[in-house]
Amino acid sequence: MFIPALEGQADDKQKDKWLPMCRSYKVIGTYAQTELGHGSNVRGLETTATFDKSKDEFIVHTPCLTAIKWWPGNMAKTANHALVMAQLIIDGKKYGVHGFIVQLRDFETHKVRAGIEVGDIGPKFGINMVDNGFLKLNHVRIPRENMLMRFAKVDADGTFSKPNHSKLSYGTMVFVRATIVDTCYKYIARAVTIAVRYSIVRRQFEPAKNQPETQIIDYQTQQFKLFPLLAAAYGMFFVGKEMMRLYQLNNEKLQKDDVSLLPELHALTSGWKALTTEIACAGIEVARRSLGGHGYMVFSGVINLFQDWVSSQTYEGENTILYLQTARYLLKSLQRAVVGKKITGSVSYLGERGMAWVEEKCAAKSPADFSNPSVILHAFQHRAGRMILTIAQALQQKISEGADLQAATGSFSVDLVSAARAHSMYTLLKTYSDSVEKLPETTSDLVAVKQILRKLFILMGSYYIETESGDFLYDGYMNGKHVQMVTDLGRDLLSQIRPEAVALVDGFDFHDHFLNSALGRYDGKVYSALLEWARESPLNNSDIGPGVKEFLLPTITHGGEVRIVSRM
Amino acid sequence: MFIPALEGQADDKQKDKWLPMCRSYKVIGTYAQTELGHGSNVRGLETTATFDKSKDEFIVHTPCLTAIKWWPGNMAKTANHALVMAQLIIDGKKYGVHGFIVQLRDFETHKVRAGIEVGDIGPKFGINMVDNGFLKLNHVRIPRENMLMRFAKVDADGTFSKPNHSKLSYGTMVFVRATIVDTCYKYIARAVTIAVRYSIVRRQFEPAKNQPETQIIDYQTQQFKLFPLLAAAYGMFFVGKEMMRLYQLNNEKLQKDDVSLLPELHALTSGWKALTTEIACAGIEVARRSLGGHGYMVFSGVINLFQDWVSSQTYEGENTILYLQTARYLLKSLQRAVVGKKITGSVSYLGERGMAWVEEKCAAKSPADFSNPSVILHAFQHRAGRMILTIAQALQQKISEGADLQAATGSFSVDLVSAARAHSMYTLLKTYSDSVEKLPETTSDLVAVKQILRKLFILMGSYYIETESGDFLYDGYMNGKHVQMVTDLGRDLLSQIRPEAVALVDGFDFHDHFLNSALGRYDGKVYSALLEWARESPLNNSDIGPGVKEFLLPTITHGGEVRIVSRM
Ligand SMILES: Cc1cc2nc3c(=O)[nH]c(=O)nc-3n(C[C@H](O)[C@H](O)[C@H](O)COP(=O)(O)OP(=O)(O)OC[C@H]3O[C@@H](n4cnc5c(N)ncnc54)[C@H](O)[C@@H]3O)c2cc1C
Ligand SMILES: Cc1cc2nc3c(=O)[nH]c(=O)nc-3n(C[C@H](O)[C@H](O)[C@H](O)COP(=O)(O)OP(=O)(O)OC[C@H]3O[C@@H](n4cnc5c(N)ncnc54)[C@H](O)[C@@H]3O)c2cc1C
Ligand SMILES: [Ca+2]
Repeated sequence: MFIPALEGQADDKQKDKWLPMCRSYKVIGTYAQTELGHGSNVRGLETTATFDKSKDEFIVHTPCLTAIKWWPGNMAKTANHALVMAQLIIDGKKYGVHGFIVQLRDFETHKVRAGIEVGDIGPKFGINMVDNGFLKLNHVRIPRENMLMRFAKVDADGTFSKPNHSKLSYGTMVFVRATIVDTCYKYIARAVTIAVRYSIVRRQFEPAKNQPETQIIDYQTQQFKLFPLLAAAYGMFFVGKEMMRLYQLNNEKLQKDDVSLLPELHALTSGWKALTTEIACAGIEVARRSLGGHGYMVFSGVINLFQDWVSSQTYEGENTILYLQTARYLLKSLQRAVVGKKITGSVSYLGERGMAWVEEKCAAKSPADFSNPSVILHAFQHRAGRMILTIAQALQQKISEGADLQAATGSFSVDLVSAARAHSMYTLLKTYSDSVEKLPETTSDLVAVKQILRKLFILMGSYYIETESGDFLYDGYMNGKHVQMVTDLGRDLLSQIRPEAVALVDGFDFHDHFLNSALGRYDGKVYSALLEWARESPLNNSDIGPGVKEFLLPTITHGGEVRIVSRM
Repeated sequence: MFIPALEGQADDKQKDKWLPMCRSYKVIGTYAQTELGHGSNVRGLETTATFDKSKDEFIVHTPCLTAIKWWPGNMAKTANHALVMAQLIIDGKKYGVHGFIVQLRDFETHKVRAGIEVGDIGPKFGINMVDNGFLKLNHVRIPRENMLMRFAKVDADGTFSKPNHSKLSYGTMVFVRATIVDTCYKYIARAVTIAVRYSIVRRQFEPAKNQPETQIIDYQTQQFKLFPLLAAAYGMFFVGKEMMRLYQLNNEKLQKDDVSLLPELHALTSGWKALTTEIACAGIEVARRSLGGHGYMVFSGVINLFQDWVSSQTYEGENTILYLQTARYLLKSLQRAVVGKKITGSVSYLGERGMAWVEEKCAAKSPADFSNPSVILHAFQHRAGRMILTIAQALQQKISEGADLQAATGSFSVDLVSAARAHSMYTLLKTYSDSVEKLPETTSDLVAVKQILRKLFILMGSYYIETESGDFLYDGYMNGKHVQMVTDLGRDLLSQIRPEAVALVDGFDFHDHFLNSALGRYDGKVYSALLEWARESPLNNSDIGPGVKEFLLPTITHGGEVRIVSRM
């Protein structure tokens, strides 16, 4: 985040000074925004940067307990500089939050500099190889040039000048969220690879006496756990690619001071970041449990995926808050559509066909009809639109009864999250399907690949219609028969995907070394790997475990009554 | 498990010999059932116990890699005896799986005995203070008396005699599952206590300029995350109590060789174990995420709850398999109901009113109608019955078309899991409501307590109707208006529970020491606790972190090009 933030928010002179030092690892930076008391609400940050005109310096300071910086990655022991986000104060007046480069440690000795307390925040669920830190600043002085000045500026006489566009500094945020969306696939795909491979090797229960036990991948319940995740993994692969393409496109526009794509891209990345991390993290845990007891071992290779990635639902915008932001954009877009204004991009469907979609019903007459991507997409589009419209109407009703807009909106916030999630799922599925349909069909192999990917897309769609069927039944868009059809199709697809499952996970091309899993080995030798890895475990270096002589043996020999003399 | 298994499966003479040694900690036992290759399928275990008549001994042996015992708790370093479940072989004939006591380590030296390899299976997701072990036996001889002989017996001339009832040995299994159901509450309640307390202290975002920031517990989305879990925690408390009562009742009957309660109790414990652990584990993670970034810290006190308890979904019967077992019982019970036979216990509703429930519709006319417990319970009862009936009819159809019963059943296994879960949820909610309605109303305080508990019950019910509404809409039992009513009621209940939330978590009466959470402190001083705990973290003993001098400083001083000379 330190380098992307410099690239996004430093002016050219600052970039020329700092980026080469970053690239040669002389400057090791950390992005210090979050504080003990404030994460999501960046405007509420309490760290101050007060301009001292007499010295042409800022005084960066932690005025209270809750203002202590908390969480910045690599800040505890590794970084020697921090980009500290702080409230700019000039002549006693506040000018909002800006970025200030503060040197934390000496270049030569790596010792912490005067006025600074920095430390590790303690053990975490995962990513414990990153030293997330805390930072307390006691009136630390930095040159005025250390405030990032691409957008807002403070000159030597203390004059503050505002950026042209209030949204310009969103660039960094959009970049980081887009990267998270693009990374999700790697996590869910690894978990699914391990689970599918193990489910081929693992056998449990004889179908009949003296028959070989069934491979667990042949149980429908196991397929229902894993194949929708396999489908989601491929979907996220395509969505990640599209996300980065849109990000690049927006970047090119921003270079020309064209911010037209930003609001749309901001809403899309927020919603997709929330939905992809939600699906990936929940999916990793489903895959882990599908391994039975052995999935509880670190050697499974799935534990670390969950522990490390689960925080992606929280950092760079907590998912609930992201959905609420996306929902606000949806409400605004719908309002434009209602009065007949044109809306473009991911929300354009809200205005389509003069909003005739409100009344439309599901057109499927048989399970096979649902294997048409447009039938699936129509359902998700209708659901999202209907949810947003229902809230908009209820809001209007409340406001016409004299309710306060903010309070009324707050009273629908659970529904707003659902609507934003439904919208994000529609746009995600649309991108998935469009990406598959664009694939070439120039050889018979390519045709086969495209066919199986289309099946995966349909499976993902049918899975969510089935498991969230209430949303499609609520307004009569579907009836129970439709839900049964889509369910039947989904079960049928499980059987169709079964023979392709191994090839589909091999297609991710993760090497054993990267998977680091005794259960997900390419060669299938899971049991000998488990035994080998366990035998090498440090606890097995000695036969007699720690504490046995001091505590356990006296108990065994003299009975449970023995008093252990404390050695403290 | 070692002691409960002895109590359940040893004969009186064996109990007299072993239990006193267990109670004085001379014998430290482990229950060694699971093997590398077999967990769920106990009949498939490969460890053998072959009777040697000439010596009146059994030879216990690990014949292959997959027969290595894997997982038994405390087996690696602590236990000196194991109850080894093995295939009994007499004169070359197999007699099924039975329990054999094998001494693993010497009483005096705690050294591993001849013919035995025992070790730690390696790091796990949680409960790493338990040394789960592996065990390889090389023709280890034990006296004949070491086979547990309460039910099946082998006498000195090698004659095998069967137990009276094939189901008698279910007793231990039922006990352990009942205990898990009773324990669930402690986990979910701790997570909710921490999350509610922190949500009172944590403030984020000003509702309007210059107003104090909002306590996050006042956001509807936050209430929707936490209050249904609070409701579930109280529900599990009552369900756990009822579970143990039924277990005791069954035990008294078993003493008199009366097995009439066993099938019912087995189905109920299986379903409840699966559902309570599912709700508790998913709920802990929801509560953890509701803490924002600080929930990712071990100091939150929620991480360990998830890591330790998440395996409860897998051990003592993997949840999917448990649901499938419950489903089999439901299908059988329904078949009896269809032909007009009487069915009792938790499934009795399937036969009620001559099965008129099939056609019944939801009677609610307004949101308030759903605050009647019987309206909520009727909905869950109908859903469960309808799901089972739908599968039974579809199965019959398939079989009448010539399908094989087992294959046909397998093709509905996803639906069977859903039906068993729906049944378990109905019986759980029924027990919750019955327990609340039984509470005394002798003082105004007791009346108030009963009222708020009833609200929690209704909230839990309305939450699941809303989030699983498709199941209630599928056959027209409800329509969209009903779902909207129950949703409106649910939102209203969130506001009603808000002022009681702190008292409700204080009611669990967990002490700070037991919660071990910087965020869930009774005194609310979360930020100073985080800072204090972090400062005491071992990583903060020295300013310069590990590896800085050797690796980081050379890089900073000479740039990223420096070659680090390996010290290996
Ligand atoms: C692994 C990890 C690495 C991190 N790395 C960095 C880093 O390098 N640099 C850095 O500066 N920070 C970092 N962070 C901090 C991170 O960015 C914040 O924790 C994150 O933004 C969430 O904010 P919060 O903790 O304030 O959550 P909160 O906002 O306190 O969220 C708590 C709860 O309140 C709810 N809530 C809050 N506001 C609202 C609202 N308006 N409406 C409805 N609900 C609301 C949330 O939904 C959530 O349920 C890191 C965090 C983690 C976990
Ligand atoms: C923390 C922990 C402690 C333990 N302690 C002990 C102990 O003290 N002693 C001991 O003996 N054991 C112990 N165990 C082992 C535990 O009892 C087993 O791991 C558990 O019973 C699950 O069995 P499994 O591993 O064979 O899972 P599997 O049966 O291999 O399950 C893997 C997957 O296959 C699916 N599956 C399997 N069969 C079917 C089917 N028929 N239909 C549909 N799906 C199916 C499951 O649903 C699951 O998704 C422990 C395990 C853990 C995690
Ligand atoms: Ca649902």
